[in-house]
Amino acid sequence: MAQQLIDRRDLEFVLWEQMDTKKILENKRYREFNKKTCDLILKEARTLAIKEVLPTLKPGDEEGVVLENGVVKVPECFHRPFELLKEGEWPNLIIPQEMGGQGSPKAIGVAAAEYFMAANWALNCYSTMGNGTALMIQIFGTHEQKQLYVKRLTSSQWGGTMLLTESDAGSDVGALTTSAVKNPDGTYCLTGNKIFITNGDHDLADNIIHPVLARIEGDPAGTSGISIFLVPKYLVNPDGTLGERNDIVCTGIEEKHGIHASATCSMTLGSRGECLGYLLGEERKGMKIMFYMMNDARLGTGLQGLAYASASYLEALNYARERIQGRDLVDYTNREAKSVPIIKHPDVRRNLLRMKAYVSGMRSFFYYTVQCKEQLELDHENNAVDEAFFSLLTPIIKEYLAVMGYEVCNQAIQVFGGAGYTREYPVEQYARDCRIASIYEGTSGIQAMDFLARKIGAENGAAFAKLITEISHTTAQAKKIPALSPLAEKLDSAVSRLVDITVGIGKKALSLEFKTAFAHSLPFLHVAGDIIMAWMLLWRAIVSSDKLEKGCRQKDRSFYNGQLKTAQFFIQTELYAAMGKMDAIAQGCSAAIDIEDEGFGGL
Amino acid sequence: MAQQLIDRRDLEFVLWEQMDTKKILENKRYREFNKKTCDLILKEARTLAIKEVLPTLKPGDEEGVVLENGVVKVPECFHRPFELLKEGEWPNLIIPQEMGGQGSPKAIGVAAAEYFMAANWALNCYSTMGNGTALMIQIFGTHEQKQLYVKRLTSSQWGGTMLLTESDAGSDVGALTTSAVKNPDGTYCLTGNKIFITNGDHDLADNIIHPVLARIEGDPAGTSGISIFLVPKYLVNPDGTLGERNDIVCTGIEEKHGIHASATCSMTLGSRGECLGYLLGEERKGMKIMFYMMNDARLGTGLQGLAYASASYLEALNYARERIQGRDLVDYTNREAKSVPIIKHPDVRRNLLRMKAYVSGMRSFFYYTVQCKEQLELDHENNAVDEAFFSLLTPIIKEYLAVMGYEVCNQAIQVFGGAGYTREYPVEQYARDCRIASIYEGTSGIQAMDFLARKIGAENGAAFAKLITEISHTTAQAKKIPALSPLAEKLDSAVSRLVDITVGIGKKALSLEFKTAFAHSLPFLHVAGDIIMAWMLLWRAIVSSDKLEKGCRQKDRSFYNGQLKTAQFFIQTELYAAMGKMDAIAQGCSAAIDIEDEGFGGL
Repeated sequence: MAQQLIDRRDLEFVLWEQMDTKKILENKRYREFNKKTCDLILKEARTLAIKEVLPTLKPGDEEGVVLENGVVKVPECFHRPFELLKEGEWPNLIIPQEMGGQGSPKAIGVAAAEYFMAANWALNCYSTMGNGTALMIQIFGTHEQKQLYVKRLTSSQWGGTMLLTESDAGSDVGALTTSAVKNPDGTYCLTGNKIFITNGDHDLADNIIHPVLARIEGDPAGTSGISIFLVPKYLVNPDGTLGERNDIVCTGIEEKHGIHASATCSMTLGSRGECLGYLLGEERKGMKIMFYMMNDARLGTGLQGLAYASASYLEALNYARERIQGRDLVDYTNREAKSVPIIKHPDVRRNLLRMKAYVSGMRSFFYYTVQCKEQLELDHENNAVDEAFFSLLTPIIKEYLAVMGYEVCNQAIQVFGGAGYTREYPVEQYARDCRIASIYEGTSGIQAMDFLARKIGAENGAAFAKLITEISHTTAQAKKIPALSPLAEKLDSAVSRLVDITVGIGKKALSLEFKTAFAHSLPFLHVAGDIIMAWMLLWRAIVSSDKLEKGCRQKDRSFYNGQLKTAQFFIQTELYAAMGKMDAIAQGCSAAIDIEDEGFGGL
Repeated sequence: MAQQLIDRRDLEFVLWEQMDTKKILENKRYREFNKKTCDLILKEARTLAIKEVLPTLKPGDEEGVVLENGVVKVPECFHRPFELLKEGEWPNLIIPQEMGGQGSPKAIGVAAAEYFMAANWALNCYSTMGNGTALMIQIFGTHEQKQLYVKRLTSSQWGGTMLLTESDAGSDVGALTTSAVKNPDGTYCLTGNKIFITNGDHDLADNIIHPVLARIEGDPAGTSGISIFLVPKYLVNPDGTLGERNDIVCTGIEEKHGIHASATCSMTLGSRGECLGYLLGEERKGMKIMFYMMNDARLGTGLQGLAYASASYLEALNYARERIQGRDLVDYTNREAKSVPIIKHPDVRRNLLRMKAYVSGMRSFFYYTVQCKEQLELDHENNAVDEAFFSLLTPIIKEYLAVMGYEVCNQAIQVFGGAGYTREYPVEQYARDCRIASIYEGTSGIQAMDFLARKIGAENGAAFAKLITEISHTTAQAKKIPALSPLAEKLDSAVSRLVDITVGIGKKALSLEFKTAFAHSLPFLHVAGDIIMAWMLLWRAIVSSDKLEKGCRQKDRSFYNGQLKTAQFFIQTELYAAMGKMDAIAQGCSAAIDIEDEGFGGL
């Protein structure tokens, strides 16, 4: 039967055949999990996502969010699946048990989340955003703060947010003007206006705990003067019951391109001078604490891009298998020939295979990154290079999965043709919803700066060197397999080119021409992503080749052969294009910097 | 002052400095037009577009189109500017005088249309779609049909449409089932259901004349059995007054991703068995007659992509000049440094310059193509190669301007960041509206097939050879200018590579591996477009270099220097990427054809 949201077989392949999830289960932390329980969890997640969550996707988009008499109302149909998610303790599956969660292996928690995000990201987000807030409190909060907030947040009883952006402080967080004045009892009085606050208010949770970036009166300008405060919607009594309504209110909801069901709020703090906040962690450490949450949010944004792409690809694939239109090319001269499903047409096949390549590559890359994170935590030793390697992958995950996820959504519309442009099919909504992913939690440009300025050179380049070594392990293996050897050679030469341009752009970033380097930083991040795609697909092909050689069922044969074809397609088309993009970066053209501002025209 | 919709200086450059519009004005057909009148026309078009049409863009999107008691109502705010356009005779500016139009030079008509499309494509379309219908009637209709319909259509008193698509006959027009039965008086009775009919019904015109593709009872299956009929909404008396309501009704309006203000109608013909139609031209010549309109519609779709891109670029540029965010990179270590407008940031500059390169290249390409068409008509000699050359450009204009126009719209959102995702700025609407351009009037895949199967080899390859020769003229000129010589060398080598892969893919298309060839047909069309962009930008640079050398005002210096930087940027970045794409095509990977259907997964 045609699948929705995520290709189950593909997910199983990544978890159990490509990545070593089995080995991770051997760790004593996961003694309550074995492959069977994991399979069961994912089966239930899939059923819940398809049966209860997905049906709310379109109505949620149509109904949107309403601000009525100061109350933000989510789409009516969200309430039932929200309760089901909460009762099933799905939002905290991945959260450690000491924080009230289920403590699942990361890969399993992520896989369940992929289903729920693909089914309805906005709904899933209402149920999970408290986790980010809880995590910050768990690490930086006082004993009392942990007791009061953490489990209420991870249980979805209360919601969480992140109040960062202001109208004149977006990418430039340091420009914020929200201020905090210390009260005699050690609490703070906050005043300010925040915008673009996801789930800033809604009617699904009893309370909402807002982490707020603000500057304590007298603290220095810029990011170094920023502190972070916990500002509850309802003040919380020492026994955890709710007290008075705090002076923080939603004053508006953005009308947006997509994710209509997600409340993007303008929030006003202290309009009556009575917004009470509690310092989290130390004074002036707000940025560091916020980034603890932000890095997870960036990974989550990558997963969002992947989830939409995965769902869109399956929609397009199912449609292409069913939609009869046009004669097979083989019979083009025969005007009496029967019409065929559009999957038979060469250009549709190319488009579908390209989409499949990106969805597959992005999924493998995401679970690989999650596995790195898991190992970092399980190993306990603070290996600085491994930490830096994981940090190097983060901006690529965030940016590449956002942009290429969107590209897949966009191409899904194309497969549907005119029908894809209508609201009859979900692909146009997936595209609108996905468009946000390369904007929030740091735009493309911010990720590219982070990648070039901070990540590439980390640990004296050892993190980047590790990436190259990891890829080389895969190509070395592939070279032993005759069918894959030419693909491995090509990837090797691409990797060697990547090393060249990395050295080049890295040097330039430290020279007087650093602006030119940064003008190429985004294409540079993107080609790194392209090469990682090729790596992941070649790795898939190695595993598949091995399985095919050992013999398997017919259905598995098709799956594994599909992996071989996907790797071949990507390396022989997209990777060649990536070589051209690297040549462009190597040129180091400075025109974008040199051109006068007036030269852009429009005056 | 910041400009909107179209960069006036850039349009003037293309019309009067790059293209030879002055020479065209010397033709006696245009004796009523000189540069001064043309300037005046465009000044008025711009004023009307910005003052009266643009303000309806957002309300039109929000209000959309309503089907109420069988009547299709456009947004209320459309009525006034529609009347202004009609009174000013703007919709028929480009239409020959013998058809009731103003008979303007094509380039001038197109330039005015670019303004109106950028201001509100949907509104403009209601006022101009009758022209396509009128053109078919003018060429293929009887004397009586011409008398009755043509001037009423070109005056926007009546509307026109094109009833082609059915739910099972989209790209495969030949599969249509709408039927026609001849009445004793020579008229026909039509029965069928059509979908996706732009402006199928609305309340702006007194009558609507529908050209309808249908099959006369007993005629052969496929496209060769299709005839075309004129089906008026209200029957027309011999004196042109309106008679009874014909049996053709709008039964539904599509909810769409964008162009909400454009009525996309489902039409039912003959539900009471009384839908009267009049044969246009000969029986079974419907496809040929329809394509006469379709080729113009394809050019129009390219112009639509360009217009949205142009408007989006200027929105992004204006925002980037005003939006203060982040310190200048030069002062990054200085945390006290003042913040700067985002146009100062390297990644924003790169993005803007890339957008500018595409908008500029697409505009030059479009007006070049229009000039080719103009010359074809003025020359009167039927030069088969020139005809074929123009036909070769058509699918590139349609597909490339649609796709790259969309890319520019999409990147405009990125320049705005979070603000771009909201409905506060027009860029998110431009992106949604633009998304249709690569779908209707023949999808990307259809354009690519047309390009490879019919256009590349036309006139024994002479049309394609003319493209190469034309580009070579430009590179030869550029090589005489030291600053441009390296750019010309690069373009030459790209062109030579294009010739190679064209020969390769052309041969493959005629071999047993033809499916593989068609699996690369869309990337092939796209690289042809990339190379044309480089050509157009280099040509702009030659003209600019010449002007700079001769001396000019400071403001013009900035403009011309901007052209040089744009050409340099494009050729040193995007053209290198195009080289990689050509290498990919040259590989001729057959994976998309070879992969089993099951290998796509999802089962």
